[in-house]
Amino acid sequence: MRKTPVCVVGLGLIGGSLMRAAQSAGRDVFGYNRSVEGVEAARFDGYDATTRLDEALTRAAETGALIVLAVPMPALPMMLTHVRATAPHCPLTDVTSVKGAVLDAVTEAGLLDRFVGGHPMTGTAHSGWTAGDAGLFAGAPWVVSVDDHVEPDVWTEVTALALDCHAVVVPARSDEHDRAAATISHLPHLLAEALAVTAGQIPLAFALAAGSFRDGTRVAGTAPDLVRAMCEANADELLPVLDESLRLLSDARDQLAEHRSVAELVEAGHAARVRYDSFNRPDIVGVVVGAPGWRDELAAAGRAGGVIRSALPSRDSRG
Amino acid sequence: MRKTPVCVVGLGLIGGSLMRAAQSAGRDVFGYNRSVEGVEAARFDGYDATTRLDEALTRAAETGALIVLAVPMPALPMMLTHVRATAPHCPLTDVTSVKGAVLDAVTEAGLLDRFVGGHPMTGTAHSGWTAGDAGLFAGAPWVVSVDDHVEPDVWTEVTALALDCHAVVVPARSDEHDRAAATISHLPHLLAEALAVTAGQIPLAFALAAGSFRDGTRVAGTAPDLVRAMCEANADELLPVLDESLRLLSDARDQLAEHRSVAELVEAGHAARVRYDSFNRPDIVGVVVGAPGWRDELAAAGRAGGVIRSALPSRDSRG
Repeated sequence: MRKTPVCVVGLGLIGGSLMRAAQSAGRDVFGYNRSVEGVEAARFDGYDATTRLDEALTRAAETGALIVLAVPMPALPMMLTHVRATAPHCPLTDVTSVKGAVLDAVTEAGLLDRFVGGHPMTGTAHSGWTAGDAGLFAGAPWVVSVDDHVEPDVWTEVTALALDCHAVVVPARSDEHDRAAATISHLPHLLAEALAVTAGQIPLAFALAAGSFRDGTRVAGTAPDLVRAMCEANADELLPVLDESLRLLSDARDQLAEHRSVAELVEAGHAARVRYDSFNRPDIVGVVVGAPGWRDELAAAGRAGGVIRSALPSRDSRG
Repeated sequence: MRKTPVCVVGLGLIGGSLMRAAQSAGRDVFGYNRSVEGVEAARFDGYDATTRLDEALTRAAETGALIVLAVPMPALPMMLTHVRATAPHCPLTDVTSVKGAVLDAVTEAGLLDRFVGGHPMTGTAHSGWTAGDAGLFAGAPWVVSVDDHVEPDVWTEVTALALDCHAVVVPARSDEHDRAAATISHLPHLLAEALAVTAGQIPLAFALAAGSFRDGTRVAGTAPDLVRAMCEANADELLPVLDESLRLLSDARDQLAEHRSVAELVEAGHAARVRYDSFNRPDIVGVVVGAPGWRDELAAAGRAGGVIRSALPSRDSRG
């Protein structure tokens, strides 16, 4: 069976890596990039790239390609308008880190029925075509959304692409993804910033700082613009988990002041970390894509740590 | 010139490593340990150890040895009572991580005039004589206190021992040490525990957790008893820095809720972390121990990141 072609919109670190990985997997891949430099670099490396978005999208419509939106969030609405105009029936996915905001933009553009959101959880400190690498996704979790609107055929296409890139697929609802990302990625950034600022005010702190401080503030080294973009785009999900952390720390503060004890927080924190260390990553098998309740089943399996390492069976009928 | 002998009280990880390092440096070293097992292991390795505290302290008094208290904080008052009874004129130091509490116990025991607190900032996850290593202190910061009561001759003895162990000496006041330790060691533990607990409550969080979360919660893997002991013994210094972090995070929360911005915290955090990365560790030279104002000069130099890598000149007179 011929594999579905892939049209990559945006050839930066993620889009460029995806183009390389999908082509190595034997797919027809073509792509669009705004900058001439990126396109020339991709062509020099032997890839099929253009600066003409209409050309890329027309070809996607003609070949029934899977369109992957790999542009930054601010550029997304404009790209969606073009997709709607030129290739509205192509299966559509994205690689953006905040899924709720993308879902809103896709709904706004009237493209929800062919869209399944994605988020490959990988990256490097570098950007642009030249930073790309066909191996970037190998072994990394790639979230593929199982929201209520998701169609089995598009979901299967997006999952197949992620598996072609050698990622492991984590099925998840967009809202749960965003809440989890707020907790495990955006909140740690804010805690690290607060720790760095606090230490910066204390004489002798930098002079004595060692492992705990270095680990605890490592992500404060990330460029402020990137941290702001992540945290602010996901504000609705970040606020409740930030509030929960503030509550835990304030309670510990009161216990320490009144009873000179931090037992409650320290024991709960240690137990949670031990639970994380022993968290299983079982393979998800036996779910039939398109069968009744398949989206809820996959969401539950992903929540429990399950990952998809090879294609799931699917039903012809829509679930 | 004959080097001052060393009497090590407590032959666990730190005391046992110190015994080995001081002996390699050509010192006469002898030590006491409560458990027969520890003493037998030390003797088997060719070291001079006894389970009889009175014997060790009598010998210290006779030889004018530098006594190093390397027992856990709860055992300290009892040891100080014995030192007061048997060897009250020996120079005295310790290796405990909270310096204010030790200073109180030493004052209580009436031994302040011969005491200079110390804190080698190193360790491993293991404990006991067999975990010890003569190289444990190599390159590590070893805080030697410059509190107002500190006598130049004792300070010089303690510094010489730290340098013999190949540590770099950071001169600091006990209260500043404890405030800095609260910030760079105890606060990061509480933040890590809060992050682990928060993530433990969010479905999908462990399933998606990666680098930021792993780094941010690494120290939550430390045994709860150790974390409690550190944080609770240093409660007076930990509370204000915890309050400052809570204030920073609450302000960021309000900015995020009202203006969808975390700019203030993120930019300040990044700036602080960059400042830490470029923090200099100049050698402290030119301070004459015992000269007028020498303690304040050393405290200021330590605060600025300075370290002592070889013995400072000293005046015969007391400063």
